[in-house]
Amino acid sequence: MSIDVVILAAGKGTRMRSDLPKVLHPIAGKPMLGHVVDAAKALGDVQITVVIGHGAELVRETFANSDVAFVEQTEQLGTGHAVAQALPNLRPGATTLVLYGDVPLIRAGTLQGLLAAAEHGPALLSVDMDNPAGYGRIVRDNAGRVQAIVEEKDASGEQLQICEINTGILAAPADRLAEWLPKLSNNNAQGEYYLTDVVAMSVSEGVAVSGVRASDPVEVAGVNSRLQQAELERACQRRQAQDLMVQGVTLLDPARIDIRGSLQCGTDVSIDINCVFEGDVVLGDGVQVGPNCVIRNAQIAAGTVVNGFTSIDGADVGPDCNLGPYARLRPGTALARGAKIGNFVETKKAQIGAGSKVNHLSYVGDAELGKDVNVGAGTITCNYDGVNKFRTEIGDNAFIGSNSALVAPVKVGAGATVGAGSTLVRDVEDAELAVARGKQRNISGWQRPTKKS
Amino acid sequence: MSIDVVILAAGKGTRMRSDLPKVLHPIAGKPMLGHVVDAAKALGDVQITVVIGHGAELVRETFANSDVAFVEQTEQLGTGHAVAQALPNLRPGATTLVLYGDVPLIRAGTLQGLLAAAEHGPALLSVDMDNPAGYGRIVRDNAGRVQAIVEEKDASGEQLQICEINTGILAAPADRLAEWLPKLSNNNAQGEYYLTDVVAMSVSEGVAVSGVRASDPVEVAGVNSRLQQAELERACQRRQAQDLMVQGVTLLDPARIDIRGSLQCGTDVSIDINCVFEGDVVLGDGVQVGPNCVIRNAQIAAGTVVNGFTSIDGADVGPDCNLGPYARLRPGTALARGAKIGNFVETKKAQIGAGSKVNHLSYVGDAELGKDVNVGAGTITCNYDGVNKFRTEIGDNAFIGSNSALVAPVKVGAGATVGAGSTLVRDVEDAELAVARGKQRNISGWQRPTKKS
Amino acid sequence: MSIDVVILAAGKGTRMRSDLPKVLHPIAGKPMLGHVVDAAKALGDVQITVVIGHGAELVRETFANSDVAFVEQTEQLGTGHAVAQALPNLRPGATTLVLYGDVPLIRAGTLQGLLAAAEHGPALLSVDMDNPAGYGRIVRDNAGRVQAIVEEKDASGEQLQICEINTGILAAPADRLAEWLPKLSNNNAQGEYYLTDVVAMSVSEGVAVSGVRASDPVEVAGVNSRLQQAELERACQRRQAQDLMVQGVTLLDPARIDIRGSLQCGTDVSIDINCVFEGDVVLGDGVQVGPNCVIRNAQIAAGTVVNGFTSIDGADVGPDCNLGPYARLRPGTALARGAKIGNFVETKKAQIGAGSKVNHLSYVGDAELGKDVNVGAGTITCNYDGVNKFRTEIGDNAFIGSNSALVAPVKVGAGATVGAGSTLVRDVEDAELAVARGKQRNISGWQRPTKKS
Repeated sequence: MSIDVVILAAGKGTRMRSDLPKVLHPIAGKPMLGHVVDAAKALGDVQITVVIGHGAELVRETFANSDVAFVEQTEQLGTGHAVAQALPNLRPGATTLVLYGDVPLIRAGTLQGLLAAAEHGPALLSVDMDNPAGYGRIVRDNAGRVQAIVEEKDASGEQLQICEINTGILAAPADRLAEWLPKLSNNNAQGEYYLTDVVAMSVSEGVAVSGVRASDPVEVAGVNSRLQQAELERACQRRQAQDLMVQGVTLLDPARIDIRGSLQCGTDVSIDINCVFEGDVVLGDGVQVGPNCVIRNAQIAAGTVVNGFTSIDGADVGPDCNLGPYARLRPGTALARGAKIGNFVETKKAQIGAGSKVNHLSYVGDAELGKDVNVGAGTITCNYDGVNKFRTEIGDNAFIGSNSALVAPVKVGAGATVGAGSTLVRDVEDAELAVARGKQRNISGWQRPTKKS
Repeated sequence: MSIDVVILAAGKGTRMRSDLPKVLHPIAGKPMLGHVVDAAKALGDVQITVVIGHGAELVRETFANSDVAFVEQTEQLGTGHAVAQALPNLRPGATTLVLYGDVPLIRAGTLQGLLAAAEHGPALLSVDMDNPAGYGRIVRDNAGRVQAIVEEKDASGEQLQICEINTGILAAPADRLAEWLPKLSNNNAQGEYYLTDVVAMSVSEGVAVSGVRASDPVEVAGVNSRLQQAELERACQRRQAQDLMVQGVTLLDPARIDIRGSLQCGTDVSIDINCVFEGDVVLGDGVQVGPNCVIRNAQIAAGTVVNGFTSIDGADVGPDCNLGPYARLRPGTALARGAKIGNFVETKKAQIGAGSKVNHLSYVGDAELGKDVNVGAGTITCNYDGVNKFRTEIGDNAFIGSNSALVAPVKVGAGATVGAGSTLVRDVEDAELAVARGKQRNISGWQRPTKKS
Repeated sequence: MSIDVVILAAGKGTRMRSDLPKVLHPIAGKPMLGHVVDAAKALGDVQITVVIGHGAELVRETFANSDVAFVEQTEQLGTGHAVAQALPNLRPGATTLVLYGDVPLIRAGTLQGLLAAAEHGPALLSVDMDNPAGYGRIVRDNAGRVQAIVEEKDASGEQLQICEINTGILAAPADRLAEWLPKLSNNNAQGEYYLTDVVAMSVSEGVAVSGVRASDPVEVAGVNSRLQQAELERACQRRQAQDLMVQGVTLLDPARIDIRGSLQCGTDVSIDINCVFEGDVVLGDGVQVGPNCVIRNAQIAAGTVVNGFTSIDGADVGPDCNLGPYARLRPGTALARGAKIGNFVETKKAQIGAGSKVNHLSYVGDAELGKDVNVGAGTITCNYDGVNKFRTEIGDNAFIGSNSALVAPVKVGAGATVGAGSTLVRDVEDAELAVARGKQRNISGWQRPTKKS
C-alpha cells in the first residue's frame, strides 16, 4: 500500500498569543510539526505533504530539509478545504493519511493500526475519553462499523453518554477523497468545509468506515494554548522517563527530568533530580549524573561521575572522569580517561589527556593538555588577543601553578613546572621551571587606609 | 456603599510551631495577611481594621505603612469577640466585611459578589467541598436563603450530605453587627463567642441571609499548619503559572516555577524549568530564561537570553544581551544592548556598554565600561581597600587581558590594551598598552618536589 | 517474646536490568535492605538473618558491620524454601518475623502490631488496596480470623471483590515454622515452595491465624522495577517532607526536596525549592536554605543563610554566617560566627574565623584564617606542589588584596595587608604590607593585533 500523508499545519493558533506559527512551537525541544513528520516517516516509505498557511514561509524554511512537500492554504476554510489543497499531490491508488501539525504525540504504532484498517475503505482514529464533553461522538452499528460522528450539539441524551470520540485523524483511499472533498459543503455555523463529513458520505454510499481506537488520549491531544502545550510537554517527558526506567535507568524523580532530543543510556546509569538533556546525549555504563545538570550533544563514557550543577555542551568525555560540581564543558572539549574538571572551570576546544586535572576556577580554551597534567586553581589560558584565537599546549606531567596566565600561543613542555602566579609569554621546555611574577617586598609601618567621608 | 473591612489576625497558630505570628508567614513571598489586605484594597476605597493579638507588635510593624488600623484582642475569646474589638472603628451605615489573616488566597472578585449580596442584609460566603466532613453545613430554605449553619456534630444524616459549607467570611451592615455582637453567647464547648452565630440571630429576626458561593475551595482555605501553608503556596503558584500561560508565556513545567512578587512578560517569553522570580520582574518580548535561574527585582529587555543557573538581583538588562550560565548580576548592574556576561562572573554597581563582554570568571564591581569592551577571563576590579570602595572606568573598545587586576580608582582609556596577568595601579591613556607583570625566567635542571613523609 | 527476623534478600530483580543486586538499590540514599534491617532493629533486641542469593558476596560486604547473620539460598525455590534456609538460626520458643529486602518502607510500628497479634499463633500482614487485582485475597471467617489466602486465579467472583490482600509479611512461632516448612509442596505452576502455604496448614490444624492490616499500601509495596523504585523513592520523600512540616519546617515545595539520610531542623527553618540533603545534616534555628542547594554531612548553626546553588559537604558552619550563592564548602571547612563565603568560592580544610569574608571567586584550602579577615576576589591559596599539601595561615584583621596567590606554606600576620595581584612566597609579619607584582609600564603607539587569515 502506498501511503500519502497530509499534515494540516496552516492554523494560526490565536490562543497561543505568539508570533511563532503554532506548529513550530516545541514539545520536548522539537517543533510540534517535527514530531508529526517523524511519526509519519516511521511508517516507512511515505510521501508527505504539509498544508501551510499562517507563517507559511517560516514553516517552509524550518522544514526545508525534511523531505516533505508543501501546499499553501491561503484561506482558512476548514479541514476539508485544507486536505483538498493537497489533492494534486495524492497518488491514485494510494492511501491518504491525514494528520495534524498541532497533534504532536501521535505514535507510529497507532497509525499502523489505522492504516491496516484502511485497506478496504476509510478508517478513522477514535479514542475513549473519561470526559467526552465537547467532542464529536463515534456512533457505531452493531457490527462495530462507524455509522456517524455526532457533534455534541446534535447528540441525543444516549449519544452524549458515548465516551468514544473522533480525533480527526483519518485514513482513506485517495481516489475516494478526490471524489468526496469537492462535494463537501460549508453550510454550517462556522462556514467551513469539514473533513469529518466524508464519513457521512462514505456511509451513505455504503462504504463501511472502520474506527480504530488510540490507546491513550495524549496521543491525539491537540495544542491550542500554552496550557495544552505545557500539558503535552509534561506528558511527553513522562513517557520518555518511563521508557528510560524500563530500560533500567535510575531516575531519582521521574517528574523532574527533561529530555529534548535523544538520550541513550548504558547499564546502571543514575540520573539525579532536575536534569535537562538536549540534542543527542549518550551516557555509558554506570554513569552517574548529579542534581541540576544540563547536558547537550555529549558522549560520556562508562564510569564517569557528573557532579551537580554541571553544564556540558558538545563534549566527548572519556571513561572514569569526574566533572563538577559547577563545571562547564563547552563544544570541542574532549577528555581522556580519568580526567577531572572541577568547580567553576570552563573548557572549550580543549583536549585533556588521561588523568589530567583542572580542579578549580580555571578557563582552558583552545588548548591541548597531555597526560597527568595538573592545572592549578585560577589558571587562565589567554587564547584571545581581541581578534585572533591561539592555542596552548601543555605536555604530559606538567604542573601549572595556581593563578597562572598562559598567553597563547605558548607551549609548556612535558614534566615542566610553572610557578604560581606566573604570566607565561614564552614557551617552557620539557622539565624546565618557569616563573614569571613580581618580587615580593614586605613593608613595615604601613598605614592602613581609613574611611573616607 | 461604604465598606469597612475587619481582618482577624490575632491567632497564635500553635501548629505552625513557629516564633513568627501565623499571619506573617508568607505565601508566594508575601505575608498571608498582606494577601488579605491587598484583596481588601482591590475592593476600592475601603477602611481596614486588623484585629491583632499574638505577636501584635511585629504584625503592627510589618504593616505600619499599609494604611490599616489596628485593634488589639488581648484574649482569644472567639471570632465574634474579635470582630467586637473592631466595633469602634466601624462606620454607621457602612457594610462590614470580615476576612481572616490566615485565609490568604481570597479573590477580590469573589468578595465583590459577596458585597453585592450584602446590600440588604447579611451575606456569608460558602463553598462546595468534595469532602465537607468537619465543616459547618449551609442549610438553605426553598427560596435559597441561608436558614442555618449546622455544625458537623449537630447535623442530621441528611444535613451531613450537604456539600456547601461555611467559610466564615461574611458581610453585614455595621449597625446590625453592633446590635448582634454584644448579644453573642459563649455557652459552648470551647467557651468562645462565635461570629457565625449572627446568622441565627439574623434569621430569627426575620432578616434574610444570603449565601454566596466561592468558586474554588482554595480561595477560602485557611492555614493552620506548615502543610496547609505549603498546599496554598503551591496552589498560588499554579494559579500564577496558569495566568502566565494564558497570557502567552511558554512554561516548560508549570509545576516548577515560583513567583514571589510580580512577573510581567512580553510576547513569546519562554521560561525553562525550576526558575524563581522575586520582587518585581519584567521580561521583554522574546526573552528566554534557562533552567534554574533566580531573578529578583530586574528588568530584562527584549531578545535577551538568560542561560541556566543565572542569578540576577536588582539589575537592568538591555536588549539582546546574553547572560550566563552561572552569571551573577547584583544590584546596580546595568547592561546596554548586546552585552554579554558569561560564566562565573559577578557584577555589582556596574554599567556595561553596548556589545561589551565579560565572559569568564571575573568580578566587575563599582565599574563603568564603555562600548565593545572585552574583559578577559579572570579579571578582577579591585574596588575595596578594606574600608572604602573605588571606581574603575574602562573606555570604548578597550581590551583587558586575562587574569588582570584593576586596582581602583583607575581608568583605562578608549582603545587601550591591558596585557594579560597585569595588576594595574595607574591610569592607562586612550590607545595605550599597559603591562604590569613579572618577567619570565625559565630555569632548567629544576628538581620537582618529592613526597614528604 | 524473643524475635528472630528473617529477611529474604536473594532475588535477582531481572526487571531492574541492573548489575547491582536488587536489595542494594537505594531508596532515599540507603539500600532497600538497609531500610528493612533498620525497621527490624527498631523492634528492640532482635536477631536478624538475611537470606542471600544473587549477588550474595556484595550484599554480605555491604552489611558486614550491620550485626546480621547471613544464610545463602543457592537455588531460588520460593519464599518457603528461602525461610527454610534460615531455620537453623531460629531459636526455639522465639517468634519468627519474615520481611523482604525489596519491601523497604515497612514501619516498625506496623510490625509491632503484627508481633502483638502473633503471641498465640501465626499472624500475617495484610493491606487494603483500591485495586487488588493480581494479589492474593484475605478471606476471613465471621470471627475475623484469617481463613485462607486465595490467589486471583482461584478466587470466586465474590472473593475477587475483597480488597484486603496478602503482603507476604508474616510472624509465627519458630517451632511451628520448623514443623511446617519441611512439609511445603512445590506442586504448583512455578514449581516453588510458598511461605504463604503455612497459613493453610495452620488453619487445617485448627491454629487460628490473625490478620493485621497495614495502614498504608506504600509500607508493603515491593520493588521489582525502576518504576517501582522511583515510586517508593518519591513516597519516601513525601513521608519525610510531611514529617518536617509537622515539626514546623517551611518547605517551599514539599514535592521538591530530597533527603537521603537524616535532617534535623531547629525552629523556623525554611528550605526553598529543589534542595538535596545527604548523610547527617543539622540545621539550627532560623536557618534559611535557598533554592537548589546540595548539603551533605554538615552542621549549620542558628541564623545562617545559605543562598541558592550552594554545595556543602562535611562542613561545620557557625551561627549567622552567609553562604553563596554558588559557594562550595568541602570537607574540613569550619566557619565561625558571621563568616561569609561568597560566589564561586571553594573552601576545603579551612578554618575561617568570626566575621571573616571570602566573597568572590577564590580557593581557600588547607588554611586557617583569623577573625575579620578580608580575602579579596580571585585569591588562591596555592596549597599543592604536585605531591605535598601545605598550609596557609592568615591572622586577625588581615586584608588580602584581590587576585593574590598565597604560596603555602606561608603566614600572613595579624593586621597585615597584601597588595592586589601579589604572589606571596614569604611570610608577612603582623601589620606589614606585602606587595609582589610586576611594575606597570604604559606604552603608547602600540598597534593592536589584526585579524590573521
